Amino acid sequence: MLIIGEKLNSTIPQVRQAIKDKDKAFVQDMAIKQTEAGADLLDVNTAMEDEVNDMQWMIETIQQVVDTPLCIDSTNPEAVAKGLETAKGRVMINSISMEKARLEGILPLALDAKCELVALTTDDNGIPKTVEDRLAIAGRLVDILDKKGFPLEKLYIDPLVLPLAVSSDNAMIFYQSLTEIKKRYGVKTISGLSNVSHSLPQRRLINRYFLANCMNLGMDAAILDPLDAHIMTAITVTNLLMNEDRFARKYLQAYRDGILQS
Amino acid sequence: MLIIGEKLNSTIPQVRQAIKDKDKAFVQDMAIKQTEAGADLLDVNTAMEDEVNDMQWMIETIQQVVDTPLCIDSTNPEAVAKGLETAKGRVMINSISMEKARLEGILPLALDAKCELVALTTDDNGIPKTVEDRLAIAGRLVDILDKKGFPLEKLYIDPLVLPLAVSSDNAMIFYQSLTEIKKRYGVKTISGLSNVSHSLPQRRLINRYFLANCMNLGMDAAILDPLDAHIMTAITVTNLLMNEDRFARKYLQAYRDGILQS
Repeated sequence: MLIIGEKLNSTIPQVRQAIKDKDKAFVQDMAIKQTEAGADLLDVNTAMEDEVNDMQWMIETIQQVVDTPLCIDSTNPEAVAKGLETAKGRVMINSISMEKARLEGILPLALDAKCELVALTTDDNGIPKTVEDRLAIAGRLVDILDKKGFPLEKLYIDPLVLPLAVSSDNAMIFYQSLTEIKKRYGVKTISGLSNVSHSLPQRRLINRYFLANCMNLGMDAAILDPLDAHIMTAITVTNLLMNEDRFARKYLQAYRDGILQS
Repeated sequence: MLIIGEKLNSTIPQVRQAIKDKDKAFVQDMAIKQTEAGADLLDVNTAMEDEVNDMQWMIETIQQVVDTPLCIDSTNPEAVAKGLETAKGRVMINSISMEKARLEGILPLALDAKCELVALTTDDNGIPKTVEDRLAIAGRLVDILDKKGFPLEKLYIDPLVLPLAVSSDNAMIFYQSLTEIKKRYGVKTISGLSNVSHSLPQRRLINRYFLANCMNLGMDAAILDPLDAHIMTAITVTNLLMNEDRFARKYLQAYRDGILQS
């Protein structure tokens, strides 16, 4: 499973401040730390007053120290365009959806770049409650992208988990949506981890079992905090159980490195 | 999911000693502690020199202090018979299999008692390597029990997980066997947790993610250590995620009680 590091996001107060201050050391340190902890890509979000220029500054700053591929995280077509123009090497766009503004603004950029792409199962009516309605949106997204010649193997659909605190079936709705999207459309899936536990205590505990379950259902990528040793332990253990770690090499290495959190 | 407490088993040195010494306080304390921690049944194993009399002593000793149903754990028909004769209330027999000795010795007791029953997917050739061979044994067990009028809703089949250290596909073989047994035969499933992690370090970490995965596949019962707060936390969190904990009542209660282990 692809690990996308979530720690360079302007919704995090420290990151917000670092962007304002143009604090290169902070950004570069966070890029290096996430990479060393096992991130396959780094999410970059600069949704502030000067999003477009900040996107350029962030990407240039990060790519001075690591060549970890970047995930350009924005709802603003200009910021995405600037990100694509600035970033060297493999990139991912996060995200399109069936919302009109995103289809008009970001879809053309994705079609042009033919890079990896996250698509959310939402439209201008919001996030659907039911599995069927999410599948319908996923189907429309797949259809549009396929007709326009987008390479579907680069598509990651996010079925958008809602908080358990809102409705106790929200994780199950997500699991079923994920399973059916993979089965019906044969495309990859992705999720963030934190929504599921929103406004409950000891959230990271919920997040890590949610992730393990999603991995067992074949989820292909997750946006998460690679500096959370418990989450990374959950990934190492789940990979071991799923026969993704021959001779338990990675598990035993993590054990010897003292990074397995019990 | 049914929680079967594993701590009154004579393979545990302290328990062995307590049985030898007829240490009632130890046995009763362990029965109370497991019950208070959430065990739905208590496994009782006295496989020592005087197994039959010890089974009687253990059950009488336990039932002086708790009325938690007991799981009579023995390969010895006389010990099982003594257990059934001694125990009051609901009981489970652990276990039969397609091994000739167990079919001849223990099956008649189960048919007579019509109590809950664990059946292992093994025969006189040992534990099969493949999913198909385990399913074949499960099918034969279901067939025999059904023909002899055993109530199949009381049957728990254990597809017998082998250690990951022996072969890295052993957990996946178990997951597939469990899923297929439920689908094909519509019977309940059960497992112990510790085999999967045998001879690897930080075993309890592997055990708890294994359990969470099994729960997601619909496993109906597990034999485990209810005094392991991490395992019990895994169960609480997984039930929350699986929509088995409306309004997160049990999760929040466990949080307030300070028993969620992060």
